[in-house]
Amino acid sequence: MSTRAYNFCAGPAALPEAVLRRAQAELLDWRGIGLSVMEMSHRSDEFVGVASKAEQDLRDLLAIPANYKVLFLQGGASQQFAQIPLNLLPEGGTADYIDTGIWSKKAIEEARRYGTVNVAASAKSCDYFRIPRQEEWTLSPDAAYVHYTPNETIGGLEYDWIPDTGDVPLVADMSSTILSRPLDVSRFGLIYAGAQKNIGPSGLVVVIVREDLLGRARSSCPTMLDYKVAADNGSMYNTPPTLGWYLAGLIFEWLKEQGGLEAMGQVNRRKQQKLYEFIDASSLYSNPIATADRSWMNIPFVLADAGLDKAFLAGASARQLLNLQGHRSVGGMRASLYNAVSEAAVDALIAYMAEFEKENG
Amino acid sequence: MSTRAYNFCAGPAALPEAVLRRAQAELLDWRGIGLSVMEMSHRSDEFVGVASKAEQDLRDLLAIPANYKVLFLQGGASQQFAQIPLNLLPEGGTADYIDTGIWSKKAIEEARRYGTVNVAASAKSCDYFRIPRQEEWTLSPDAAYVHYTPNETIGGLEYDWIPDTGDVPLVADMSSTILSRPLDVSRFGLIYAGAQKNIGPSGLVVVIVREDLLGRARSSCPTMLDYKVAADNGSMYNTPPTLGWYLAGLIFEWLKEQGGLEAMGQVNRRKQQKLYEFIDASSLYSNPIATADRSWMNIPFVLADAGLDKAFLAGASARQLLNLQGHRSVGGMRASLYNAVSEAAVDALIAYMAEFEKENG
Repeated sequence: MSTRAYNFCAGPAALPEAVLRRAQAELLDWRGIGLSVMEMSHRSDEFVGVASKAEQDLRDLLAIPANYKVLFLQGGASQQFAQIPLNLLPEGGTADYIDTGIWSKKAIEEARRYGTVNVAASAKSCDYFRIPRQEEWTLSPDAAYVHYTPNETIGGLEYDWIPDTGDVPLVADMSSTILSRPLDVSRFGLIYAGAQKNIGPSGLVVVIVREDLLGRARSSCPTMLDYKVAADNGSMYNTPPTLGWYLAGLIFEWLKEQGGLEAMGQVNRRKQQKLYEFIDASSLYSNPIATADRSWMNIPFVLADAGLDKAFLAGASARQLLNLQGHRSVGGMRASLYNAVSEAAVDALIAYMAEFEKENG
Repeated sequence: MSTRAYNFCAGPAALPEAVLRRAQAELLDWRGIGLSVMEMSHRSDEFVGVASKAEQDLRDLLAIPANYKVLFLQGGASQQFAQIPLNLLPEGGTADYIDTGIWSKKAIEEARRYGTVNVAASAKSCDYFRIPRQEEWTLSPDAAYVHYTPNETIGGLEYDWIPDTGDVPLVADMSSTILSRPLDVSRFGLIYAGAQKNIGPSGLVVVIVREDLLGRARSSCPTMLDYKVAADNGSMYNTPPTLGWYLAGLIFEWLKEQGGLEAMGQVNRRKQQKLYEFIDASSLYSNPIATADRSWMNIPFVLADAGLDKAFLAGASARQLLNLQGHRSVGGMRASLYNAVSEAAVDALIAYMAEFEKENG
C-alpha cells in the first residue's frame, strides 16, 4: 500500500509515483547490466542511449524544431541569469526585461552586471497582481534580446499569451510552467527551465536554444557556461548530472504515456480551474491575481484571518496534504499543481479547505 | 542474490551497495514522511537536516578545521577551472600551475583566459611518467595561488606528498583522490572535488575553502560562481542538487561505519599494492609510472600485445569485471579502485588477469 502524501511543494516538487517506482526497481541494476545508472560512464553506449532518448522524447513532447539545440546543464535558472547575458548580450549592449515579480527581478539584477537592462514593462505599479499587456511595453529598438518570466512561481502570475518581439530573440524562464501544456517553441530564441518542478530532480537545468544564437559568448565567459561548447559536445563537455538526466528521461516517457502535453494541459486546466473557483466562491480564502493572469502551476492564497494559518497548515499536514505554506518572502499559502500532482490531490485539498472553512469560517 | 558487477569505471564510478540499498528503500518515502528526499523543499527542516549532517560527517572524516567552509556546488571540476581564477586571481595577476597531465592542462588552459599562468613545473619532459619534485618547481614570487592536481585520473599519477607553498594558498583538484586516505586539510587554501568518484553521483562538486579566501571574486564573476555567496547562503543561494547532496551524505555515513579514512586508507593501500605487484611481476601487463608517483585510485596498464586488448576486455566483461578500457585519449586499460571497489573486486580482477596471461602470455 502506498504511504505517499499529497505534495504541493513549489520545488523541488512532487514526481510521478510510477517514475519513482521504476527508478527504485532499477536503482542497483539498470536493465540487467549489474550497475546503477549513476555508476556508469556518461560516455558508455548505455548512458548515451539514455541521454539521447531523453532528448528525443522532450523534442517529441514539445515538438521542438530541428534548428534548436536541447542542452542538459547544471546550476539552475539562477546560473542562467548570468549565462544568458554572457552568451547573448554584447559588451556595451542593451537587453529588454519584463518585471513581473521576484524571479524576473533576480534575472534583471544579474543581467545588470553585464550590460544595460531596459525594464520595458513592470507589474510593480499594480502590486504584481496583473501582467502588463504587450501594448504597455516600451521595447528598445536595439535590444539584444527580450527576457520575460512566463510563470512567476512565488507571485502566482502566468502569461496566457506569448509576446511578439519580431526579430529580437525572446528569452523565457519557463522553470515552473514548461511541459504543463503545449508550447510553440518556434516563437522563442531561448527557453530555460530548472528541472525541479515539471522535469525531474534539482541539479539539472534544460536549455532550448535556437542554433543561430550559439557562438556569441563573450571572451570572458567560462567555457562551461558557453552554450556553443555545450551544444558541440552534446551537453557532455564534462561529466553531466547523469542521474538527473536519466530521471528526466523517465518523466518524459511518463508524459508521453499520459498522452503528451495536450492531455496534460487538459488535466492541468481542470485542476487549477477547480481550485480557483473554490477560492473565489469562498469567504475565507482569496487570491489577488487578475483572472487572466493567474498561474496554472502555482496558486497562492491567503486566509481572511492570518491567525488561522497555523491551524490550517497543521490540519493539512494531518491529512497528508504537505508543503502548502507560502514562500518565506510573502507568507500565506501556496498550492503548486505541477504535472505530478494528481487531480485527486487537488480534490483532497479542496475537500479539506471546505471542511476547514466550515469549522473556522 | 546480488547481480551486481565489479565496476572499475573511472567515473561516474561504483557506489557502495549498502548505500544504494538504503537509497532504494527510502526512495518513495523518506523516513515515513510520505515523500522522496528529492520531492522536498531544500529549505525544509527535513532537508536542511540531511544537508547539515552530510557536511558535519564530511568535516569529521577529513577533520576539516573550523576556519574552512564546505560548499556543495554544481558544474563539476571543469567549472571550478574558471571559478578558481574568477575568485582568487586578481585582474592582471599571476597564478602558478603544476602540469602533471590532462586534467592539469585543462585547468591551466581555462585559467589562462583570466590572467597570467606560470607553469611552475611540468611532467612533460618525462612523458608524464613522473611527478616533478618540489625542488624542480619554479614558483612565482607574487602568485595569487599555486594549483596542482594531486591525482591524475587519466595518466594514473598521484602525489604521495603535499607541496609546501608557504603563505601562497595551495589549490588542489582532489576529484579522484579525496576520501581515499586521511588528509591534512590545513595545508590547503582550497580543495575541490567532483563527486562522481569517491563522494556520490555526478552533478555535485564539493569545495573546501579557507575563510580568508572568500570575498575576493571579480566584479564580472557570476553570482552563482562567487564562493562567498555560496558560503553565506549555506550552498543554498538557489536550489542545490538535493538528491546528490543526500547521496553524498549516505556515502559519508558509510565511510564512518567502515572506520573512517584511516581504515579506508589501509584497504586502499592493500588494493593498489596487490595490483601493482601483480602487474610488475607479469610479462604481459605493464604500468609505466615511476613507483613513488603511482596512483592508488586509477591504475592504467597496457598489454604487451595490443592485439589482445579486445579479447581481454571481452573476457573481463564475461566475468562481470566492467569498465576496464582506458580513457579514449590514451587507450590501453585502466582499473579505478575507488572506495566502493572492494578488495574482493581487486582479487577477482587479478585472478582473471593471471588466467588471461596463462592462456595468452
